[in-house]
Amino acid sequence: MKPTHIEHIGIAVKSLDEAIPFYEKVFGLECYAVEEVADQKVKTAFFKVGDTKIELLESTDAEGPIGKFIEKKGEGIHHMAFAVDGLDAKLKAAEEQGVRLIDKAPRKGAEGLSIAFLHPKSTFGVLTELCEAPK
Amino acid sequence: MKPTHIEHIGIAVKSLDEAIPFYEKVFGLECYAVEEVADQKVKTAFFKVGDTKIELLESTDAEGPIGKFIEKKGEGIHHMAFAVDGLDAKLKAAEEQGVRLIDKAPRKGAEGLSIAFLHPKSTFGVLTELCEAPK
Repeated sequence: MKPTHIEHIGIAVKSLDEAIPFYEKVFGLECYAVEEVADQKVKTAFFKVGDTKIELLESTDAEGPIGKFIEKKGEGIHHMAFAVDGLDAKLKAAEEQGVRLIDKAPRKGAEGLSIAFLHPKSTFGVLTELCEAPK
Repeated sequence: MKPTHIEHIGIAVKSLDEAIPFYEKVFGLECYAVEEVADQKVKTAFFKVGDTKIELLESTDAEGPIGKFIEKKGEGIHHMAFAVDGLDAKLKAAEEQGVRLIDKAPRKGAEGLSIAFLHPKSTFGVLTELCEAPK
């Protein structure tokens, strides 16, 4: 599928109010957007580093995916997202190659991207997201 | 410290022999180097995606850091590495800001980089590496 770049790295944190100032002061990165994704039960904060974004994820519901992740594994890197062109076709191709899909079809993610997740059981433990920017 | 880009994402895998063909066939990425880092008890495989590398890490010793990580957490994303200029000074600045350092001074990593790790306890659960390319 040859991704063009790593679109973002998703990091689960307990509190954006604590993590954002840390990323700003210690790493010198600027938080350029905070967005709630109700569907995923998260509030996200974005930073740009070169081609790639860091997406901090705070759960808005202990039963949501990030709430459960933090309960089980603690704070840390949650997923990696590849930017691809032609997401629909790439998703089908991955499935044909035996990859288990979490999302059978693209759905709407943060920042207006079309997104789909691959299951970590079939990607060597890495929750992998494919993203396509709107045309 | 304002990193220039994300230098690499380190992913712990049980077997490079299984994971490399997967990254090549499914993701369409080319493994351009395999290198053993005896010091870290790992064999590494590198892929380039835009500005960033993916570094697959196979443990050469169950008692090494990757061996222990996989035993405890399973395969998955192990660390994130920022590329910085002036690693020495940035490491000192991070320490002055209260960040706990794993490496008090830069040491030699894969691909001839100078590297140092920050402790995940002081970086919201993310094992964070700082890297500087040789001049």
